[in-house]
Amino acid sequence: MNAPILLTPGPLTTTARTKQAMLADWGSWDQAFNQLTASVCEDITGIANGHKTHVCVPLQGSGTFSVEAALGTLVPKNGKVLVPNNGAYCQRIVRILGYLGRQAVVLDHREDEPVSPERIAQALDADADISHVAQVHCETGTGILNPLHEIAKVVAHHKRKLIVDAMSSFAALPIDLTETPIDAVIAASGKCLEGVPGMGFVIVRQDVLEAASGASHSLALDLHDQWTYMRKTGQWRFTPPTHVVAALREAIDQFQSEGGVAARGARYRSNCETLVGGMRALGLRTFLSDEQQAPIIVTFHAPPTPHFQFQALYQGVRDKGFILYPGKLTQIETFRVGCIGAIGPDQMSQAVDAIATTLGELGIQTRPTL
Amino acid sequence: MNAPILLTPGPLTTTARTKQAMLADWGSWDQAFNQLTASVCEDITGIANGHKTHVCVPLQGSGTFSVEAALGTLVPKNGKVLVPNNGAYCQRIVRILGYLGRQAVVLDHREDEPVSPERIAQALDADADISHVAQVHCETGTGILNPLHEIAKVVAHHKRKLIVDAMSSFAALPIDLTETPIDAVIAASGKCLEGVPGMGFVIVRQDVLEAASGASHSLALDLHDQWTYMRKTGQWRFTPPTHVVAALREAIDQFQSEGGVAARGARYRSNCETLVGGMRALGLRTFLSDEQQAPIIVTFHAPPTPHFQFQALYQGVRDKGFILYPGKLTQIETFRVGCIGAIGPDQMSQAVDAIATTLGELGIQTRPTL
Repeated sequence: MNAPILLTPGPLTTTARTKQAMLADWGSWDQAFNQLTASVCEDITGIANGHKTHVCVPLQGSGTFSVEAALGTLVPKNGKVLVPNNGAYCQRIVRILGYLGRQAVVLDHREDEPVSPERIAQALDADADISHVAQVHCETGTGILNPLHEIAKVVAHHKRKLIVDAMSSFAALPIDLTETPIDAVIAASGKCLEGVPGMGFVIVRQDVLEAASGASHSLALDLHDQWTYMRKTGQWRFTPPTHVVAALREAIDQFQSEGGVAARGARYRSNCETLVGGMRALGLRTFLSDEQQAPIIVTFHAPPTPHFQFQALYQGVRDKGFILYPGKLTQIETFRVGCIGAIGPDQMSQAVDAIATTLGELGIQTRPTL
Repeated sequence: MNAPILLTPGPLTTTARTKQAMLADWGSWDQAFNQLTASVCEDITGIANGHKTHVCVPLQGSGTFSVEAALGTLVPKNGKVLVPNNGAYCQRIVRILGYLGRQAVVLDHREDEPVSPERIAQALDADADISHVAQVHCETGTGILNPLHEIAKVVAHHKRKLIVDAMSSFAALPIDLTETPIDAVIAASGKCLEGVPGMGFVIVRQDVLEAASGASHSLALDLHDQWTYMRKTGQWRFTPPTHVVAALREAIDQFQSEGGVAARGARYRSNCETLVGGMRALGLRTFLSDEQQAPIIVTFHAPPTPHFQFQALYQGVRDKGFILYPGKLTQIETFRVGCIGAIGPDQMSQAVDAIATTLGELGIQTRPTL
């Protein structure tokens, strides 16, 4: 039986080669493993073109652990963070700041509205105490793309620091740290690099990290301590997820062979276009306009029928070999379909077919757009 | 080329079957994965005989992440924690409490001295403000076994709460929660359950956890929030290390087939006896007496030669297929050899042979004990 294809924003479908890299055990104190870690960090920094200014600090746990680690380590206890908010992952940053006891200023946007650099500029002009801006690049709650380069220019112009949650965009959408001024970029192994989940990482300006000693609320999530120890010993402070690191090494090799960010982004755009085209032909509507849509995950309105239940659609499509993702909007009923992972347009077409067949089985009519 | 055998306290050598369980991708929202998580947690609670009183909360990251999560979630902000200290992992608990801003009272012991229940009783008698005791079961820094049952009885008698770091002992040394009163037992996937590293877990009294809402310093490390969400949805709050969970499921199956804690403990004791006997025959001395020694990891004195360097021994032994572990004592030169993982006495004999050959190659004389 073939495992189902994951149309979710991570964990996602990985190649057999990536998974096979987990068939060996590694000593976490061994030089061979230290080299594995160092090469992964080196390559990740390179993907963001950050070698001259930034270092990559890996961290155990899910991507959210790295988001919390970056906020807790880099925002001083008396810091104040502007959070432009257009979705669930922006709100998670606000929730983390609440735990940390760091002041947050929330700049609300509609969920179908890209974050506005102009409104950020106004907010920074209005409050000189704001020390940091925490921005989600692709807001996975809806799949909307925020204008990162323009936002970064505004934040730099106002001489504030910028922390970017690029969890679902990193390695698929370009981030060039020599052109776009960002203090810290956060992502994880099991997203567009197409590794398996289990570790995150923060690409952070070395001078900013060096100045961040003693701020962290947590030993486990102290990025400064992790980096200092790793620089001294080549090792992780606490047991690393060795198999996950080995899989990520293999995944990055494949990422480079494919042609890096440009090629990966192109494949995901092709996936996204195939998906959206196919779904529209079935009469299903996207939540976002094409201009707002990142080629990562697409939110669709539920079919306009009173007896639609996502769970039934999910199960029918799963039986045909594909795993969908629930919506994350509170006001209207939606569901999501991911475009990322070791899959191509053929799989997206098959997924659309599976959705069409399942809707038919469920007796759900969709009105084709003409 | 065969991968080297890991004689380290985790990551350790796992079976091919355990690693092969990582050859599938799982959807983290999917019912099949929810069942995997639930069955793992159910079995872990059962290993400690805790079904009537305790629940198991899994957490992403290394075991230290779970130790910090347990301390941060279960010790209230005005709590005061007694830490009986006879090694590096006890000291790590003190360090974590410092980050958390929780008061710690350190009860120092020598590193070759098991923690004294009598001294704990005296400390609790002397300070009514102490709300919790945080105890390491097997202190991996040296490999010493602390008398957990007696300590638990003392703490319960004094009506304080007990949090146990059983990282390197769980599933190899018996812990029966119906007989030994413990509020929280912490361990991880990549230790004596012989899974791969990447997640920890806390087996915690349900009533204690229910009362622990709002104490955590960290969203990512909030055990109460993790448990509440998981109970409601069957899912992890944030992306789980799906492959690590699948490997742990497979590892627990093998643990049960082997005969549970009794059988695993017996194999490790056999490993330990083979190792210690072989090393003593070479003239190498253990740091601990046999009565103090847990069958998990053994600390050996460095050979009494001025030009001994652990790195040279490590490399020679590694070339022969075995990975040793450095010592963690600050005052005297030692090195450590682990007895745990999917290995038996034959591998331990071969490891002793590799050490003997390497010492010969390095021209290091050891004086046989008669």
